[in-house]
Amino acid sequence: MSVRFLTAGESHGPSLVVILDGIPAGLPLNEDILAKELARRQRGIGAGPRMKIEMDTAEILSGVMSGITIGSPIAILIRNKDHEKWKGKLVPAFTIPRPGHADLTGAIKYGYTDLRPALERASARETAARVAAGAICKHFLQAFGILVGGYVVAIGEIQAEIAQIPLMERISLAEENNVRCPDPAMADRMAQRIRQVMKERDTLGGIIEIAVINLPPGLGSYMQWDRRLESRLGAAVLSVQAVKGVEIGPAFENTRFPGTKVHDPIRLDADRQRITRPTNRSGGIEGGISTGELLFIRAAMKPIATTLTPQQSVDLHTGEEVETQYERSDFCPVPRAVPVLEAMVSIVLADVLLEKLGGDSLQENISRFEALRKAQINDLKMDGIDHMFWGE
Amino acid sequence: MSVRFLTAGESHGPSLVVILDGIPAGLPLNEDILAKELARRQRGIGAGPRMKIEMDTAEILSGVMSGITIGSPIAILIRNKDHEKWKGKLVPAFTIPRPGHADLTGAIKYGYTDLRPALERASARETAARVAAGAICKHFLQAFGILVGGYVVAIGEIQAEIAQIPLMERISLAEENNVRCPDPAMADRMAQRIRQVMKERDTLGGIIEIAVINLPPGLGSYMQWDRRLESRLGAAVLSVQAVKGVEIGPAFENTRFPGTKVHDPIRLDADRQRITRPTNRSGGIEGGISTGELLFIRAAMKPIATTLTPQQSVDLHTGEEVETQYERSDFCPVPRAVPVLEAMVSIVLADVLLEKLGGDSLQENISRFEALRKAQINDLKMDGIDHMFWGE
Amino acid sequence: MSVRFLTAGESHGPSLVVILDGIPAGLPLNEDILAKELARRQRGIGAGPRMKIEMDTAEILSGVMSGITIGSPIAILIRNKDHEKWKGKLVPAFTIPRPGHADLTGAIKYGYTDLRPALERASARETAARVAAGAICKHFLQAFGILVGGYVVAIGEIQAEIAQIPLMERISLAEENNVRCPDPAMADRMAQRIRQVMKERDTLGGIIEIAVINLPPGLGSYMQWDRRLESRLGAAVLSVQAVKGVEIGPAFENTRFPGTKVHDPIRLDADRQRITRPTNRSGGIEGGISTGELLFIRAAMKPIATTLTPQQSVDLHTGEEVETQYERSDFCPVPRAVPVLEAMVSIVLADVLLEKLGGDSLQENISRFEALRKAQINDLKMDGIDHMFWGE
Amino acid sequence: MSVRFLTAGESHGPSLVVILDGIPAGLPLNEDILAKELARRQRGIGAGPRMKIEMDTAEILSGVMSGITIGSPIAILIRNKDHEKWKGKLVPAFTIPRPGHADLTGAIKYGYTDLRPALERASARETAARVAAGAICKHFLQAFGILVGGYVVAIGEIQAEIAQIPLMERISLAEENNVRCPDPAMADRMAQRIRQVMKERDTLGGIIEIAVINLPPGLGSYMQWDRRLESRLGAAVLSVQAVKGVEIGPAFENTRFPGTKVHDPIRLDADRQRITRPTNRSGGIEGGISTGELLFIRAAMKPIATTLTPQQSVDLHTGEEVETQYERSDFCPVPRAVPVLEAMVSIVLADVLLEKLGGDSLQENISRFEALRKAQINDLKMDGIDHMFWGE
Repeated sequence: MSVRFLTAGESHGPSLVVILDGIPAGLPLNEDILAKELARRQRGIGAGPRMKIEMDTAEILSGVMSGITIGSPIAILIRNKDHEKWKGKLVPAFTIPRPGHADLTGAIKYGYTDLRPALERASARETAARVAAGAICKHFLQAFGILVGGYVVAIGEIQAEIAQIPLMERISLAEENNVRCPDPAMADRMAQRIRQVMKERDTLGGIIEIAVINLPPGLGSYMQWDRRLESRLGAAVLSVQAVKGVEIGPAFENTRFPGTKVHDPIRLDADRQRITRPTNRSGGIEGGISTGELLFIRAAMKPIATTLTPQQSVDLHTGEEVETQYERSDFCPVPRAVPVLEAMVSIVLADVLLEKLGGDSLQENISRFEALRKAQINDLKMDGIDHMFWGE
Repeated sequence: MSVRFLTAGESHGPSLVVILDGIPAGLPLNEDILAKELARRQRGIGAGPRMKIEMDTAEILSGVMSGITIGSPIAILIRNKDHEKWKGKLVPAFTIPRPGHADLTGAIKYGYTDLRPALERASARETAARVAAGAICKHFLQAFGILVGGYVVAIGEIQAEIAQIPLMERISLAEENNVRCPDPAMADRMAQRIRQVMKERDTLGGIIEIAVINLPPGLGSYMQWDRRLESRLGAAVLSVQAVKGVEIGPAFENTRFPGTKVHDPIRLDADRQRITRPTNRSGGIEGGISTGELLFIRAAMKPIATTLTPQQSVDLHTGEEVETQYERSDFCPVPRAVPVLEAMVSIVLADVLLEKLGGDSLQENISRFEALRKAQINDLKMDGIDHMFWGE
Repeated sequence: MSVRFLTAGESHGPSLVVILDGIPAGLPLNEDILAKELARRQRGIGAGPRMKIEMDTAEILSGVMSGITIGSPIAILIRNKDHEKWKGKLVPAFTIPRPGHADLTGAIKYGYTDLRPALERASARETAARVAAGAICKHFLQAFGILVGGYVVAIGEIQAEIAQIPLMERISLAEENNVRCPDPAMADRMAQRIRQVMKERDTLGGIIEIAVINLPPGLGSYMQWDRRLESRLGAAVLSVQAVKGVEIGPAFENTRFPGTKVHDPIRLDADRQRITRPTNRSGGIEGGISTGELLFIRAAMKPIATTLTPQQSVDLHTGEEVETQYERSDFCPVPRAVPVLEAMVSIVLADVLLEKLGGDSLQENISRFEALRKAQINDLKMDGIDHMFWGE
Repeated sequence: MSVRFLTAGESHGPSLVVILDGIPAGLPLNEDILAKELARRQRGIGAGPRMKIEMDTAEILSGVMSGITIGSPIAILIRNKDHEKWKGKLVPAFTIPRPGHADLTGAIKYGYTDLRPALERASARETAARVAAGAICKHFLQAFGILVGGYVVAIGEIQAEIAQIPLMERISLAEENNVRCPDPAMADRMAQRIRQVMKERDTLGGIIEIAVINLPPGLGSYMQWDRRLESRLGAAVLSVQAVKGVEIGPAFENTRFPGTKVHDPIRLDADRQRITRPTNRSGGIEGGISTGELLFIRAAMKPIATTLTPQQSVDLHTGEEVETQYERSDFCPVPRAVPVLEAMVSIVLADVLLEKLGGDSLQENISRFEALRKAQINDLKMDGIDHMFWGE
């Protein structure tokens, strides 16, 4: 694959690190581009007290000279501001696993004698590193006019009404409230619901939609199972902490309708040269390949596992059944997960775009991209000739 | 990764081929094991006339000597029985792409002058190769007592009621009707609905659930995004033709409830040695790692794109808007997709199981697997000691 | 990576199979192209009696319609003609491992109870599958004017004198004798030496050189360890049975000279536009990237492990020290390994070329390739401006 | 693959970074272990003035808690001490590519307008990051008693005589002089030769041998081309800057002898239980799998490309033929490359060892490793039964 990345770092360790490999040379890049996305990840209602102290900044340690990428791997460092508090500090043994978290599975798998190593790495704190890498990919896509944006469509049982809001407005409207929901009325109700759950010492999940504008047709492939765009996007989205479900377009809803109601007609636009679709129930992918229409992906995020309300568990030190006990926690990660999902989608799309374009510099990429854009009826070259496909 | 595979083959070409690489030595294997799963893939209401002629058989061309795997790649050949009819036959130009299929995206991407190459490879015919490879992985998992099964939970708008049916019964009940639905009453209604849609010359999708019994804890990892079990299972499931949505457990439903209602309590079983969960809303994965509980994955499958009822399209040869025209098609792929999804899940699970076990022969694997199984409270070795995690 | 492949098949099993994934659509391809390379693999002095019966033919089972690739994986089947003789035949237990072969290491690793499974898969018979896949890649490269050829430069202690033979002639001269050595005088001596070793019931190895003509500059990269062209070519060459050493250009010889004698001056050609190199001691790669000069790779092949002269071994059934015993064997695999190494080099080069070009059809690839070819001094755009690389 | 890593960082940028993914939990680890190997990389005759200012230290930023690995990716930061000098400094345009370096190929590939980005990333400075990652793998291997060491066997035309020096002594003797050559007499001559070449304003290459002690049998495989141990080791070694040739054992020499002189007899040791080899010309690998004997790999390193003596080149800004001009450079990288090659070999071996062992913690690995070690004649279970391998 063209673009790949590895993250590293624990929640309270010295820092998070990510290396992003495969970004072409020639892309203007600076730390502000990363800072903007990292700030988005930190804003949003439903954060616990921890968020206040974070204020992430990303240092670019490699891959950029004179403000331009040189094609080499880009390493990014995000310091954990509160690490100093943890350094040299004796931390009480943590032996009561939280239901829904990686505490127990991590300990079983890795043989820890204290649960903390599991939560240190499994924590969603790691998503800051993904947002940093994703910000670069998102910025790379923008050089081709491809925009990746996201918004909240449900918090708990409350669902937004967004069908009537034009896509570009959804993305900008979402940034105007602290729930990141483009429907202002429902955003208020969501915020209220989150405040209520904070009082109830409980947590909430929700549903996020990521939309991609101006994606060209022809990315991904049905040729082999692991080249399908649905599969690659799905893997990326499901790799995000607390995300347990994903759909391309309204996939679950589509299962309830007959084919003639689900598939998007193929039409010509006004000048009768370019193919267009009056609907987009496919979510922008057909046969594992982008259609050139808007791309939609929806992610289901479970409520946070750490609840101030005690849950039943077992103390792995004493072997006794006990209740979990916490004094602080986040309450609803959904608004702040929007940029995380945008990041993961951007990384996949940068990868498949570069597979299509090839090349090693933005200039080389862009010269080839122009050709992609111009694809029209005439370019499809169907000559109407009958073929003998097998045999002589 | 430990286990990998490539499929090849077109829908009406000479044959499908799959190479499965990474299965350990020492596993008894024969073609009947594959034939059984291939037959399951061909049975089910809603098939078009094509299914009658298929009757797949899988030839094992390598990897097995004296009825036992030798650790080498296993190549499987499935002949396309009707290839002879196509050989030397002049096939009319196909230039009207079907909405919802890979026809148009394939042509745009690969520059075809006739749409047929796209449908030849993008067709779900390819899933026979996956079922063959998956049958081997499923059989390998059985050597450890791990069972992978699946069933239909919805066809179109009709949903089964399965909550009260014990899991093992669901799997066997599902095989007793041609909808592959464990709820007999709803199975009848589903069959009726499919017959109706056949008359209406339309198609239907639905929802399939895959369940895994006896999976040990500790498979997959939260350590890196692409090691998470959700991500790897999701990628596999979303790679299946027509699958556009996936969830681990009731993920979308879980978004509507607060954390205290979603997370599965951690309890001790009767002998107070072994950890147990009274509920399983997590679907069997926490923090990217299997919990050792039942694993549940649900896939949303769209209705088949080829409908006998004409749909709007464009003739890419003439450049005119026209309607699609078909004389035959499948009507509902959902019952026959159950073994396909079982196959993909089995391949991923064989892979992560072998990552945990290592080794090159079944005997070596099994000796190590015994140790996994015995994990109990005492094995978790939490000593209750306070730690200074960072600093000297 | 763009191009990947898996082979399968045992030496006396029903057949060899290879799936080659990632070849673009639009490449004219037929079985004759494969047959030609397979025949080259079977011709050459030093073969044992087995070679006479083989006569390989490759069936293309997928990936090609109307004589043109469609971008889908290409599956190739090569039947083992003598499999019928082995089917149903009781084969004596084989428990005395041959020094130098995979017999013993295979049995230790995979826990076999008979050594035959090890030799069945480890045998160089498998290289027929690689030659088939490589023939397609070689043919693909030819579409860009890139030629891959090889020849023998040493058999045992006898070395060819080839420095004075122009490269294109080396490749054609090599095909004129049964040692595949472009130096006719030494070819005779090599043939004599092989006949002598046959009488002595011993075996011989040798050195093969692969040369690539018209490779464009810019393939491979120093950006990450596994993107370096030396590394990828080396991995491919060292994966061939019996190859244990590899060098790019005269790498071992180069270690004996000072830098000023080793590095290739950078000059201008007659029109002072295009960069040229009067020498080519680098072997065509600098900094992990092709220079655009001729590419040279040399492989060291050990003598065949199966010798008619007995060697010391241990009977793993009785636990006694014994001697190996054979009645037939090949004597010198080197001439016939030339097309195998060409195949592996071609696969790597097709992969890196496609990384540079991107795209999904030969037409798309070629339009982009033209741009590569035109790179000249003026294209390098060095503006001579001083830079502040770090800082504001 | 089990273990993977990415490096990042430019020669004069803020720092080098490496993320090493896949090291199990439970390995004691601290920065001193890394510092020791980094110091070895900086010591050695033949360094230019730059080496004096480096003094690398490696900060572990993740993956370790309480001095023990937790199974998470390990990020390491190595600051470039002289970066401060470059920050904010206007650097003269560099437009004359050095023969033998990545300057020209990098500029062609990435479209740079100044050659410096190429040399910044292509420089062997990057090997510090590899040494840090490799130090962890080497340390991991030591937990199983596996030792990786290396030494210089040739500098320029001067070759060491080491055949009579026992292996363990070679490794320790090599550390006693600044050429890292175990033969003290030749080490003196090598040092002299290097001093001479410094005066001559030229550079030297050489040959390094890496040896591995106590490697168990059964690592790597002949089952698929990219699983062969020769291939994986070769790829790793050839990925090191300036290495252009590699051989397993005396591979090039072996081509000159007949099979009966090359292959290592298989014998029993004194107690007649354990298999042993009186010779080791195979270099410790047979059929792509480790034999359990000593492993030997030899790497050919070209002389450094930057020579104080001018070489012919072209100014890419003016388009004129000119001479290169340098005032400082390294003269012979060979002694300091020894730990770099040890690092790359250690990474590959940690990877294949973990493939064999599986598991997620050192304790789990080691319990399984014990079983490997005990493999003896009796374990091989050859029952001497005749088999019908194909057929019923």
